Amino acid sequence: MLTLYGNLESGNVYKVRLLLARLGIAHVRVEVNQVDGHPKTPEFRAINPIGKVPALRFDDGRVLSESGAILYYLAQGTPMWPDGSWDHAEVLRWMFFEQYSHEPAIAVNRYILNYMADASGQAARVAENAEKGAHALGVMAAQLATQDWLAAGRYTIADIALYAYTHTANEAGFDLAAFPAIGRWLARIAAQPGHIAQMEETSAAPVESLIGSG
Amino acid sequence: MLTLYGNLESGNVYKVRLLLARLGIAHVRVEVNQVDGHPKTPEFRAINPIGKVPALRFDDGRVLSESGAILYYLAQGTPMWPDGSWDHAEVLRWMFFEQYSHEPAIAVNRYILNYMADASGQAARVAENAEKGAHALGVMAAQLATQDWLAAGRYTIADIALYAYTHTANEAGFDLAAFPAIGRWLARIAAQPGHIAQMEETSAAPVESLIGSG
Repeated sequence: MLTLYGNLESGNVYKVRLLLARLGIAHVRVEVNQVDGHPKTPEFRAINPIGKVPALRFDDGRVLSESGAILYYLAQGTPMWPDGSWDHAEVLRWMFFEQYSHEPAIAVNRYILNYMADASGQAARVAENAEKGAHALGVMAAQLATQDWLAAGRYTIADIALYAYTHTANEAGFDLAAFPAIGRWLARIAAQPGHIAQMEETSAAPVESLIGSG
Repeated sequence: MLTLYGNLESGNVYKVRLLLARLGIAHVRVEVNQVDGHPKTPEFRAINPIGKVPALRFDDGRVLSESGAILYYLAQGTPMWPDGSWDHAEVLRWMFFEQYSHEPAIAVNRYILNYMADASGQAARVAENAEKGAHALGVMAAQLATQDWLAAGRYTIADIALYAYTHTANEAGFDLAAFPAIGRWLARIAAQPGHIAQMEETSAAPVESLIGSG
């Protein structure tokens, strides 16, 4: 069975869990908690040298990291990866946009505002990210004003990749009421078969922690 | 003929130019200069709403953005995109790593140290990026200590994606002498057929500027 390393609070981990649930693929989750610094430990770097969650281990021992690469791999041969090179490129375009222009602003502000032990001295960064994040949401809203889905005219891993941190953008200080097209798109995704809430545990076995808490 | 929007100094634009040169695909370049803020102008956002270079326009008017998505699309059916889903995922893993963990540290420090009009007040960010960038280079070096290429056992768009900002990491304050495996890999890429230097103009027609300089 697949082993997924990561914590529920991470949107990047949630992306993988959303796709696994959608595809009906069972997994066991191992807790690797970002807030406690677990991804940077030697134990986890032996699994993923980059030191970031999620990482997905297959039965043969191979490990894949980077949420975008994991989504790509799992989606092959399923309706979540469309047909045709142009649609493939469009899906990846939104996924790279998410990792470069959306996540570093919106997810980072969510982290600073909710999880950082000492957020003093972060005001300038929060303000800069607020501007970048609002731009990223505006880019999404412009696309979704005329289309139901981000790419390829259907629900794909591009939507999953953007859903994860967009649906909690309010926790990052953004007002999604200003982007009604995004609100409708979020509701459309939440109504999809197999959809799970971020904090809904879907591990097929009790979750163990990679790093002892003691 | 393909139209490439961007400036020579941008490593993200260079990635696309490296692949076009490798594949022998002609293009015309239109200057869109980041240092002068051109990507954020209404003229450019009409072409790429995200407001970032590179963007690639095809003869039928379609426009593709995000360097990773452009590399993916152009590489289809060529040796620069390997065979097999696992190797595809590995290539994309390195490309997502580059956009998330490498470029935001190394390229941003290169920008701050060389191009930013007023870099005062950036010391904390430069120090933070120096740490993140050294980690990213260490991850690459560990891979390249035992393999000639980053993914799939051959030269792919993963190598092109990482080459662009790694080969100028010294301009970003990193000492590549500390990573001899990276140095050998850089030399291996520079010796590939069709390789071009970053500032080597490869536009098939005189370069015009999207935004008037006057």
